[in-house]
Amino acid sequence: MKKISSAKNEIVKQWKKLLTKKGRMQTGRFLVEGEHLVEEALRAGATRELIVREGYEIPHAWKADEIDVIEVTESVAEALSETETAQGIFAVCQMKSDAAISRGSYLLLDRIQDPGNVGTMIRTADAAGFAGVIIGQGTVDVFNSKVLRSTQGSVFHLPIIQMELTEAIQALHEEGVKVIGTALEGAELYTGIEAAGPVGLLIGNEAQGVAAELLDHCDAKAYIPIRGKAESLNAAVAAGILLYHFAPAD
Amino acid sequence: MKKISSAKNEIVKQWKKLLTKKGRMQTGRFLVEGEHLVEEALRAGATRELIVREGYEIPHAWKADEIDVIEVTESVAEALSETETAQGIFAVCQMKSDAAISRGSYLLLDRIQDPGNVGTMIRTADAAGFAGVIIGQGTVDVFNSKVLRSTQGSVFHLPIIQMELTEAIQALHEEGVKVIGTALEGAELYTGIEAAGPVGLLIGNEAQGVAAELLDHCDAKAYIPIRGKAESLNAAVAAGILLYHFAPAD
Repeated sequence: MKKISSAKNEIVKQWKKLLTKKGRMQTGRFLVEGEHLVEEALRAGATRELIVREGYEIPHAWKADEIDVIEVTESVAEALSETETAQGIFAVCQMKSDAAISRGSYLLLDRIQDPGNVGTMIRTADAAGFAGVIIGQGTVDVFNSKVLRSTQGSVFHLPIIQMELTEAIQALHEEGVKVIGTALEGAELYTGIEAAGPVGLLIGNEAQGVAAELLDHCDAKAYIPIRGKAESLNAAVAAGILLYHFAPAD
Repeated sequence: MKKISSAKNEIVKQWKKLLTKKGRMQTGRFLVEGEHLVEEALRAGATRELIVREGYEIPHAWKADEIDVIEVTESVAEALSETETAQGIFAVCQMKSDAAISRGSYLLLDRIQDPGNVGTMIRTADAAGFAGVIIGQGTVDVFNSKVLRSTQGSVFHLPIIQMELTEAIQALHEEGVKVIGTALEGAELYTGIEAAGPVGLLIGNEAQGVAAELLDHCDAKAYIPIRGKAESLNAAVAAGILLYHFAPAD
C-alpha cells in the first residue's frame, strides 16, 4: 500500500484542489469524507481511490479490493478534512457527466444558495422516487462537502445533471413532462394542480424564488399556503412538501 | 439610558446565565439575538429588556418606548453573542407558562435532538396553521439560541407547551382530537389515514423514532414511504410533509 506522510506531497496538493470548485471543475473529480458517504460511493462505482488514515481498517463488507488505497498520516488526513470529527476515510470520486433527461419526474434547482438546503433537497428527491435532479447555473456547487454530507449519499443514487434550466424545461416538454414552478404571485394552491404523469418541479432561490423568465416556460405555478404567522417556510421543507405531493405514483 | 461597559458587571453575568438551560429554567427568561427575532419578541409582548451595542439605532417602527434599554460596549455584546456576525441587538424575554391545550391541531415532539430540526418544526407548524407545539421531556431545550434562530420568530407566534407527552395525548383525547404517531412498523401510509378534524401529530427522535409506550396511546400510526434508494428523510422535512398533509383546513 502506498503511504504519504507529508501534507506537502504533490498528491496531497492535488487532493486538496478537489476541495475547491475550480479544482473539481478542472478534473471532473471530487472528494467525499466519512464512512457512510465512502460506502455509498463504492457501491455506486464512483470511487477512483480510497484515502485512509493510518490505523483505519477498511470494512470487509465494502469489497474494495480492486480500488487503490493510499494510507496517510494523521496530519495529512487533517489537511483534507472539512469536518470537526474526522473519521479518517476519504474517497476520490469521478463525476458522471453522461446523464441525460428521459421521461420521468425531475427536481430542478434555480440558484439555491444554502449547501444544506441543496443536499437535503437531493436526498428528499431520492426518497420521493424522482428520476433525477437538474442543477441550473447559480446554485451552490453540488460537490461541495456540505452539500455532499447533507445528501446522506443520495448524490450517488440518482443522476445529478448540470445544465441550463431553460434547456432542461424544453427537454422535459419534449418528453411530455409537465413543469411546475414555485411562485408567490399568480400561482395556484399546490394541492389544486393536476399532475397525473411525471413532473418537473422547479424550486427557486431562498429569497428571490424562481427567475421570472423560467416561470414563463412553466406549465403551472404552485404556492404553498402560509396559514399562521410565519413569514415563510424553510426552503428544504417547502421542497419536501412539494416533492412528496407530486411524487411519482408507486 | 443605562450603560454597561464591563463583561464582568453583575447584570451581564445574569444575562450570560440565560445562555444556559439551567439559567433559563431558574429565571423563566431567555435571550434572543438579532433584529428579526427581537422584533418578533417585541410584537409578541415577550420582551422585558432590550440590550443594544453602542451605536445601534433602534428602529422607530418597533415602538419600544416603554421597554428598558441598556447600552453595552462591543466587548459585552460579544460576550453575549452566540452568532458569528453579531448584529448588536438582544432582548431578554419572559417565557409564557400559562398555555393550555384546547381543541385544535398540535405538533408533539418526542426527544428530538437537533436544535435546527426543532426550530424548523416549530416554524413549519406555525406556517401550516397548527394551534401549538407540545415539547416532551428529552427534546432539546426550545430556548436554546440555535432553536430560536431556526424558528425564525415562530417561537413567539404559537404556544409552546412543555409537558409529559402521555398527559398531552390524554388531554387531546379529552378534547376529541385524534393523535397520529409516526412509526416504521405496523404503520399505515400517511396518505391513507383519515383525519377530518384537528389532529395531534407526534414526531419522534431522529434515530429511534417515537417511544413505543407513546405509540400505544396513539389513534393511528403513520409512515412516509421511501421510494428511491435513500435510507431516510431529514426529520424536519418529514415533519413538514406530515404537518402540511394533516394541516387544519382553511
